[in-house]
Amino acid sequence: MRRKERGRYDRDTINAILDEALYCHVGFSVDGQPFVQPTIHARIGEQLYLHGAIANRMLKTLAGGVHVCVSVTLLDGLVLARSAFHHSMNYRSVMILGVAREVTALEEKRRAMTAVVEHVLAGRSAVARAPHVPELNATSVLALPITEASAKVRSGPPLDDEADYALSCWAGVLPLQIAALAPEPDPRLAPGIAVPRALSPWARRG
Amino acid sequence: MRRKERGRYDRDTINAILDEALYCHVGFSVDGQPFVQPTIHARIGEQLYLHGAIANRMLKTLAGGVHVCVSVTLLDGLVLARSAFHHSMNYRSVMILGVAREVTALEEKRRAMTAVVEHVLAGRSAVARAPHVPELNATSVLALPITEASAKVRSGPPLDDEADYALSCWAGVLPLQIAALAPEPDPRLAPGIAVPRALSPWARRG
Repeated sequence: MRRKERGRYDRDTINAILDEALYCHVGFSVDGQPFVQPTIHARIGEQLYLHGAIANRMLKTLAGGVHVCVSVTLLDGLVLARSAFHHSMNYRSVMILGVAREVTALEEKRRAMTAVVEHVLAGRSAVARAPHVPELNATSVLALPITEASAKVRSGPPLDDEADYALSCWAGVLPLQIAALAPEPDPRLAPGIAVPRALSPWARRG
Repeated sequence: MRRKERGRYDRDTINAILDEALYCHVGFSVDGQPFVQPTIHARIGEQLYLHGAIANRMLKTLAGGVHVCVSVTLLDGLVLARSAFHHSMNYRSVMILGVAREVTALEEKRRAMTAVVEHVLAGRSAVARAPHVPELNATSVLALPITEASAKVRSGPPLDDEADYALSCWAGVLPLQIAALAPEPDPRLAPGIAVPRALSPWARRG
């Protein structure tokens, strides 16, 4: 295989990408017009949960089953080839197709919202105030089974045409990752409350 | 306004977000099933260009005008509130709706591909080998007018319920940005070719 980009379908690869991605893009269609919106997601086992405004909008605009496509993308690097044509990016992405169902049971909503907070920052749900019932009632939640899912991964150096390897142009990969700056305390934070250990240093990848 | 998230529609805000985002998510619909795929984009004036496999797939699967939604999202930080319910993210996003046209003129294709390379790394098109005509012919390019476009921006600290400000939970923002690690030279790079100045240090924001 000359191309280093290919589909991967094993469940572990798919779950790892879904869990590392801080947010997803949800696609849905209204009268033939596609919409793509970013939102936070969380995975519990084989279910992907979406909540809040995005779920609300989809529930309002679509009657019955909500056909969606959820995509997450992790950018791993710029691939700088010797030719313009072979420039690329290293990435890991997942696409899930399916029909989302509205979550109405309070307990499942509670689990989903806890998972969303844990997804953003592991351990956070133990220190933040848990949702009140009116908050749960005010939150729309959708669940999407992770069954029709696929992953794509590109990694490694550029792949140039054989003749171009003689060019004197620098070629290689610039690895990229999400980095945190210093935590910014809420201006109304009471004095004496320490910054959580998970924030300094913070790393998305274990 | 209590919420710090709102729509913004001025052209400068929209263009700046499109230009900073390294990639976009393109949504299109086939027989009612939405698809969302990540791809590299580039802006020239009021046109957004998409190319390669994504354009190819859309051109193959859709007859006539290609209704698309292009979304880009820049993640600026985790918003850690005192309550699980008010956790959020700081971000800047743009959504463009419209009908993409296939670019067939060789000169426009050439300009679009140059713009894509410049979008990935400014100055790169001057050092990388320019596309040959067969490469241009082999590349599908779509152009989308940036007319029906909107931006959304959330910034600033968490917004908790008034009663929750008394909790002893740390609250604030963890600012995030894309960071580069050390460039990885292609294993086949000839000796004596220096790393481009734009890579060390690299920063996406000017």
